[in-house]
Amino acid sequence: MTQLVKNQALKAKQASFELASLKSQVKDDALNRAADLLEKQSKGILKENEKDLANAKGLTKTALDRLRLDEKRIESMVVALREIATLTDPIGEVVDGWVRPNGIKVSKIRVPLGVIGIVYENRPNVTSDAAGLCLKSSNAALLRGSSSAQNSNLAIVKVLRQALEETGVNPDAITLIEDTSYEAVKEMLGLKGIIDCVIPRGGPSLVSTVIENAKVPVIIDGDGNCHTYVDQSADIEMALKIVKNAKMQRPSVCNATETLVVHKKIAKKFLPLIQKELKGVEFVGDKVAQKLMPGIAQATPQDWATEFLDLKLAVKVVDSLDDAIEHIRKYSTGHSEAIITKDLISAQRFINEVDAAAVLVNASTRLVDGSELGLGAEIGISTQKLHARGPMGLRELTSVKFVIEGNGQIRT
Amino acid sequence: MTQLVKNQALKAKQASFELASLKSQVKDDALNRAADLLEKQSKGILKENEKDLANAKGLTKTALDRLRLDEKRIESMVVALREIATLTDPIGEVVDGWVRPNGIKVSKIRVPLGVIGIVYENRPNVTSDAAGLCLKSSNAALLRGSSSAQNSNLAIVKVLRQALEETGVNPDAITLIEDTSYEAVKEMLGLKGIIDCVIPRGGPSLVSTVIENAKVPVIIDGDGNCHTYVDQSADIEMALKIVKNAKMQRPSVCNATETLVVHKKIAKKFLPLIQKELKGVEFVGDKVAQKLMPGIAQATPQDWATEFLDLKLAVKVVDSLDDAIEHIRKYSTGHSEAIITKDLISAQRFINEVDAAAVLVNASTRLVDGSELGLGAEIGISTQKLHARGPMGLRELTSVKFVIEGNGQIRT
Repeated sequence: MTQLVKNQALKAKQASFELASLKSQVKDDALNRAADLLEKQSKGILKENEKDLANAKGLTKTALDRLRLDEKRIESMVVALREIATLTDPIGEVVDGWVRPNGIKVSKIRVPLGVIGIVYENRPNVTSDAAGLCLKSSNAALLRGSSSAQNSNLAIVKVLRQALEETGVNPDAITLIEDTSYEAVKEMLGLKGIIDCVIPRGGPSLVSTVIENAKVPVIIDGDGNCHTYVDQSADIEMALKIVKNAKMQRPSVCNATETLVVHKKIAKKFLPLIQKELKGVEFVGDKVAQKLMPGIAQATPQDWATEFLDLKLAVKVVDSLDDAIEHIRKYSTGHSEAIITKDLISAQRFINEVDAAAVLVNASTRLVDGSELGLGAEIGISTQKLHARGPMGLRELTSVKFVIEGNGQIRT
Repeated sequence: MTQLVKNQALKAKQASFELASLKSQVKDDALNRAADLLEKQSKGILKENEKDLANAKGLTKTALDRLRLDEKRIESMVVALREIATLTDPIGEVVDGWVRPNGIKVSKIRVPLGVIGIVYENRPNVTSDAAGLCLKSSNAALLRGSSSAQNSNLAIVKVLRQALEETGVNPDAITLIEDTSYEAVKEMLGLKGIIDCVIPRGGPSLVSTVIENAKVPVIIDGDGNCHTYVDQSADIEMALKIVKNAKMQRPSVCNATETLVVHKKIAKKFLPLIQKELKGVEFVGDKVAQKLMPGIAQATPQDWATEFLDLKLAVKVVDSLDDAIEHIRKYSTGHSEAIITKDLISAQRFINEVDAAAVLVNASTRLVDGSELGLGAEIGISTQKLHARGPMGLRELTSVKFVIEGNGQIRT
């Protein structure tokens, strides 16, 4: 059983060697061909997806929705692949270069990582999105979706591999792990020297399985327990608009705000207004917030640490910017943290002292996203500090290589 | 016992928050003050080092040599700290920046990692070198040396912390783990959210302990099973000079060449010459090499995979560049790989197809080193592909942060 995973990974590794020198044009042709074929063969894919939906038992409504494909969702996958084809190829970029006094020429060149393992849940669209980004960055994609979506994933990968074959690319560059057991994930996570990086795309339990078991390098696309801090000098209208957007525009995603931190000097005015503005939101708060927002429940210590992913907002009133920063340090998952302020010193201190992938001044945490920030397609948002931090585009799927060219230089 | 490690790490974390906004001038003052104090208090440090040497039992001669301090070695530590003070501060560097159509200003700013754990063996000089690099990059250094060097390390850290105090820096920015047990290392490796990165500096067993147990991100300063390939078109004189240097100039280090790969068309001429040139080197080889180099033993499969770190060289004769690349792929640890050739196509293929931190054309693998490449002081040579690859200077001890500045922007 496990040997099967390793064998598939070894084939992907072989493909990755070939990908490293593949011309951009060939990669783009393959991406566009994959888009064409997905469009043409959408009916077949939808049929396989129906099987998955019919088999789905015990899945929540949200999970079922994520599992479901339709013509529109397939069209989004098609558009994504075509967009990836238009992006600049990161491979071969000369990141830096110089000549040493002894005449050796040193360059740092952007190269692929090699084999990237993607472990994900339900959503079959991740199959083609992730494969597309890996292909464009000359990495082999070793995909391990959930068993619930396996029929859909197999159908999509079959189409993608057909596109690779038709354009002269080793089809093992896109490989779906056939074994959907939990053991297969653990096996993947131990394939040191074969898999160069694993990126989990899913909930906290998947992420923690990956952290606990990985012997291979990982990039964590972690939780977003995001805060918006309304400073005493904040523009009230702006704060209302931003907090509403950060909480309500799409509450189920990682860059939605989960806790509102408010300076006590503005709380009396601001909190009743926000309670009125955020219709349909359930508030929980500390004692001061409870006094100012009639009828709200007391926030438990657990609430401060919870990514609600729902129309629920915790409210904390603080005595100072220092207290706000301290609260955020204690509960932040290092994703996105915002301050609303008119005070320059407060803004500067917040930027410098809050440790997160993104810090925002007078803007909604919802803006922390590859496309909103202009990075092109993203494979996730890294909440770790090594290698990639924040929205990850094609460059974050690469490494560098020192190229040292001489004419006989030795060390003296 | 383990709570002690965590408590020390938490103090380092607190210090790391303060370091993040510390002015460059203050860091440089602290580094220079530390250098002065090390010089002044060298006698006391040497006395503590004598205790370690007296306690040392069962250490190899090499290990004893690494453990030993003298005035000259302390002077090297002093010089290193002063040099680090002269390097450009990487923190605050604007790595990238742009404005989005909706007016938000996006910048990527270089920030510290936070708390860097360094796990090392014997050499007490690592204590001050690593602490200096961490301080300059605004990271708290959480040092865990070996028990054999603990008296020396405590004495050095006491001096470094005195320098921090005298210059107004939180002394916990340089913290030596008091617990020198194996359990303390495992405890460190599990401190997710407190330690931001662990860098092991030591042999394969330390590195594998770190990989097996780390729940925190790691940067692996791994083995160097380096190859030099002599292509059929190589300049024989140049090849002799480079291979001699790569093997003999300092055989005990990671960038020394361990296997010589030779094209069959040049082997007959080259191998007898190299056997004569590398006096004192023990050769092992495949059958073809054995025929051409009288008296050498047959290389075992294990030999191809071994980093000898000694005056020993394995010799492999190949039929083609493809075979050379295949052999290197099979046995390379991804450190440094060299080709000696006059053929442009061979050079290009070697550069593109060999996957290592550094690939060299017509130069000695011994040149892969921070100071030789002009990167300034180095904390190690990364053999992983994520985050840092090759010689690691100050920049490799940093992360980035997205700073997003608006005036009320929301997501629509």
